[in-house]
Amino acid sequence: MLENPQRSQPNRRLRRVGMVGGGQLARMTAAAAARLDVPFTVLDPDPHCPASAGAHVVVGDPLDASTLLDFANGVDVVTFDHERVPIELVRGLEARGVVVAPGAATAQMAFDKAVARVGLAELGFAVPEFAIVSDAAGIDAFASRHGWPVVAKSARGGYDGRGVMFVGPGESAEAVSTLGAELVVEQMVPFDGEIAVLVARRAAGEIVPYPPVSTVQRDGMCAEVTCPAAVAPPVARAAEELAIRLADAVGLVGVMAVEMFVVGEQLLVNELATRPHNTGHHTIEACVTSQFEQHLRAVLDLPLGSTALRAPAAAMYNVIGSPEADDPTDRLAEALEIDGAHVHLYGKQSRPGRKLGHVTALAATVDEARSIAARAAERLNRSECELSACSVGERA
Amino acid sequence: MLENPQRSQPNRRLRRVGMVGGGQLARMTAAAAARLDVPFTVLDPDPHCPASAGAHVVVGDPLDASTLLDFANGVDVVTFDHERVPIELVRGLEARGVVVAPGAATAQMAFDKAVARVGLAELGFAVPEFAIVSDAAGIDAFASRHGWPVVAKSARGGYDGRGVMFVGPGESAEAVSTLGAELVVEQMVPFDGEIAVLVARRAAGEIVPYPPVSTVQRDGMCAEVTCPAAVAPPVARAAEELAIRLADAVGLVGVMAVEMFVVGEQLLVNELATRPHNTGHHTIEACVTSQFEQHLRAVLDLPLGSTALRAPAAAMYNVIGSPEADDPTDRLAEALEIDGAHVHLYGKQSRPGRKLGHVTALAATVDEARSIAARAAERLNRSECELSACSVGERA
Repeated sequence: MLENPQRSQPNRRLRRVGMVGGGQLARMTAAAAARLDVPFTVLDPDPHCPASAGAHVVVGDPLDASTLLDFANGVDVVTFDHERVPIELVRGLEARGVVVAPGAATAQMAFDKAVARVGLAELGFAVPEFAIVSDAAGIDAFASRHGWPVVAKSARGGYDGRGVMFVGPGESAEAVSTLGAELVVEQMVPFDGEIAVLVARRAAGEIVPYPPVSTVQRDGMCAEVTCPAAVAPPVARAAEELAIRLADAVGLVGVMAVEMFVVGEQLLVNELATRPHNTGHHTIEACVTSQFEQHLRAVLDLPLGSTALRAPAAAMYNVIGSPEADDPTDRLAEALEIDGAHVHLYGKQSRPGRKLGHVTALAATVDEARSIAARAAERLNRSECELSACSVGERA
Repeated sequence: MLENPQRSQPNRRLRRVGMVGGGQLARMTAAAAARLDVPFTVLDPDPHCPASAGAHVVVGDPLDASTLLDFANGVDVVTFDHERVPIELVRGLEARGVVVAPGAATAQMAFDKAVARVGLAELGFAVPEFAIVSDAAGIDAFASRHGWPVVAKSARGGYDGRGVMFVGPGESAEAVSTLGAELVVEQMVPFDGEIAVLVARRAAGEIVPYPPVSTVQRDGMCAEVTCPAAVAPPVARAAEELAIRLADAVGLVGVMAVEMFVVGEQLLVNELATRPHNTGHHTIEACVTSQFEQHLRAVLDLPLGSTALRAPAAAMYNVIGSPEADDPTDRLAEALEIDGAHVHLYGKQSRPGRKLGHVTALAATVDEARSIAARAAERLNRSECELSACSVGERA
């Protein structure tokens, strides 16, 4: 049996954290919670969800208002592993006095891409040219001003490569039928690179950024993260400052990943996630404080930890389900032969293109770290070419 | 609910590890198991044992032969969090074909101090002068040859400071009544320092040592671990070589901590533990592969990981229950204010002198690491002087 923090330890003064969703982010947060002895529970419909390996799972549908409220009443702070909860339900929790971190006003910037784009623009942050449209004519009109192809994104519900399409001439109707009628349509940004900055803020106001990382998307899915980011120091500083301003502007409580396009000296905000994020998995080994511990510190309003790098360079590769859906645990021994490869597997059933784990390596240079992590990830993925077999828009 | 690896995932090829005992070692091993997706279960009489925060607990008494066998039949490899299982029960498991790692022949070197002393001497390892005695007269006879005071240790069952006494003239009868009649009596070694070497061996024969550490016992309890050890490089190399020879000689499968006295250039083997050990807790942050992941790799016969240090220096301080038995989670915020302090709390009820957690810090120098870790541990311990309020013989 696993101890249920909702029922036991009534006299413990550390507040109980409840995470909505029991995926790999919850699984890794659970490890950080155990280390600090923070009572931690997740809400997930699947009793065998990834977090079940290390957290008590309340089995239930987080999209059901009464289930969600019951769960919230058993903890002291509610936070999120994903963006699939309707923001109205989050507002409903707050209206009943539940402490939600990040709060609904912040979370909707991550839960709804249309709200995010409009909100970021209103707050004065540079974003790609965009429009909020509801039909093929809207996409065509936007493209007539900004050129084809364009990027179309479902406002809500996109994750793991779903909900994002590149749209060429004559493809708008198909995009609407695939993505739904609440769309953000954006210019294809001719970027020099993609970076991400993780930032943490606690209610008391303290904010700390992590060192920016370079990200490589393959067919739209986050495939590789390297640190330090391959940008000039002033660009890295500007990215950190942008993330700090944004955390402050949206009243963040928790960690937030800010993905940006680098265009010359300019930074355009692409995507936000107000939770631990794939672009921060390397922080488990690479930084003094992992994003998972930092998220807990932030939502509990505890002092934030150092985000300093513990090595000159780090690289992270995702382990992606192969077309044959092989189980990566079958090849764990081969991956562990590679010295310095930190293997993380999420306990998920293998499916083609599904994120099943990640590998991090630290080294003296980015190239060396990349080589170690990539070799181990390839062994777990079965074949190197499978790294590029996934679809657009992956963020989890 | 927590997924029970004994029942679920029948098609998973990774072998299931069952750990006897659900203390802090099992808790930290569980985190490593989740990371590698190794199915991991513990056997403990207490459903709220420390490991319950991250592992499925089979509630039962591991000292009961049929309970132990039932547990063993639900996993593929049995290993240990403590030494309190009678070695006959371990032999009984092996006789029934259970894979036990380390095996009974190895484990008895750690489970029984009399067997260890005799075995080490027979294998040609230098140990303090000792005798196996069963009464006060035996202690007095030993002291008449080696001088007072002497150290008396219960052959079995000692842990967390219990089972070890310093014995002066006229105190032998009291020692026997306290410690029982199966005793190892030893000379007080006038050592220059105490070090420990962690070593891992897998069944395939691969052996890797960790860098030696210096240990400081306060009133007999492991209070502080620092790395690198404060010994000359040839002594450090000799200590590693000794640990490798010993791992090979005893047919170790798993990790083993070898505690040694340094007397000039000589190394005397003091204590053994054939499991993850307090002198290796720093490896979570300080080494490429933690002792907990390494133990799992070894017992599953997977390739062993690099034991290289990830920082020039590391220090670990235990968090010990204060005389008032305050809960260290009450002061977590104060401890987390100290940058670079990696706080680990075990979820144990506070009691005076009980190990409740530990703090590790990495730094450029041992002094700097020690300062960071000690300050955070002191905040959690409530008062600095409480670090020295514990009894002799702590090893867990």
